[in-house]
Amino acid sequence: MDVVVSAAGDTPFKPVAEIAPEDYEAAFRGKVLSQIELVRQGVGHVAARGSFTLISGVLADEPIPTGSAASMANGAIEAFVRAAAIEIAPQRVNAVSPTVFTESLDDYGSFFPGMPSVDLARVTEAYVRSVEGAQTGQVYAVR
Amino acid sequence: MDVVVSAAGDTPFKPVAEIAPEDYEAAFRGKVLSQIELVRQGVGHVAARGSFTLISGVLADEPIPTGSAASMANGAIEAFVRAAAIEIAPQRVNAVSPTVFTESLDDYGSFFPGMPSVDLARVTEAYVRSVEGAQTGQVYAVR
Repeated sequence: MDVVVSAAGDTPFKPVAEIAPEDYEAAFRGKVLSQIELVRQGVGHVAARGSFTLISGVLADEPIPTGSAASMANGAIEAFVRAAAIEIAPQRVNAVSPTVFTESLDDYGSFFPGMPSVDLARVTEAYVRSVEGAQTGQVYAVR
Repeated sequence: MDVVVSAAGDTPFKPVAEIAPEDYEAAFRGKVLSQIELVRQGVGHVAARGSFTLISGVLADEPIPTGSAASMANGAIEAFVRAAAIEIAPQRVNAVSPTVFTESLDDYGSFFPGMPSVDLARVTEAYVRSVEGAQTGQVYAVR
C-alpha cells in the first residue's frame, strides 16, 4: 500500500453555552483519534516512501459560532501532522484544510457568511499535491 | 470571580511507533478537555468582562520526537481558544504558548536542541498580558 487518504471526520456543532464534555470527546474520537489511528496503525503497512493525507478544516483558523469542537479537532490534527512527520520519515503525512465547499453552500453556506467557498475540484488538487508531491508535515489550506 | 488561569496539563511522551490510542486519549483528557472544562463550566461563574487563560506550548508549532500527543493537545487548545472567544465575549479567553523554560533545562533541555529557552518571568509576562490586556482569542507565544 502506497497511499492512505482520509476525507472523513465528524464533530458536533453546539454553542459553548450548551455543549457537553461528551461532545468534545465525540469530536476527538470522530475526527482526531480516528485519523491518528490511520497513521499509527498504518505505518507498518504503508510503503517506505508512502504517504498519509488527513483532513482538518478552515475552522482551525477561522472560527464560527457553534464550532468550538470542530475547531479543537482541526487544530489537533494539524499539530499532530507536523509532529508525526518528523518521526515516520521517509513515510510522509500532511493535512488538507478546506473551507466550505461550493457544492455544499445550499446546506452550510449560512454558517460561513462572507467567506469564499472552494470548488471540490480545488480540494482534490490539494490531495493530489500531498500524495504526488514530496513534502511532509504540511497543512495545505484550500481557501 | 474575574480571572481563571491555567498553567497545568499533562501528556504522555512516546514515539509514534510505540504510542497507544489510550495515550492520545490521556493527552486529550489531561491537557485539552481539562482546560476546556475550565471555560465551559467557568463561563457561568466569571464576571462579564472576566477572562480565561489556558496553556498550550511550542510543540504545537515546533515538534520534537516522542511529542506527537503533546503537539496534538497544544494545537487543540489553540484552535479552541480562537473558537470559544467569539462565543463567550465580552468574557475573554487566550492561550499562553511557552517554549522550554530556562529553569527546566536540566530536566528537559536535551529534548530541545538548539532551541532558545525562556525564563519563567517572561512566561509570567504573557499571563499578565492576557489577564490585564483586552484581547481575546489570542495565542501568546513565548519563545
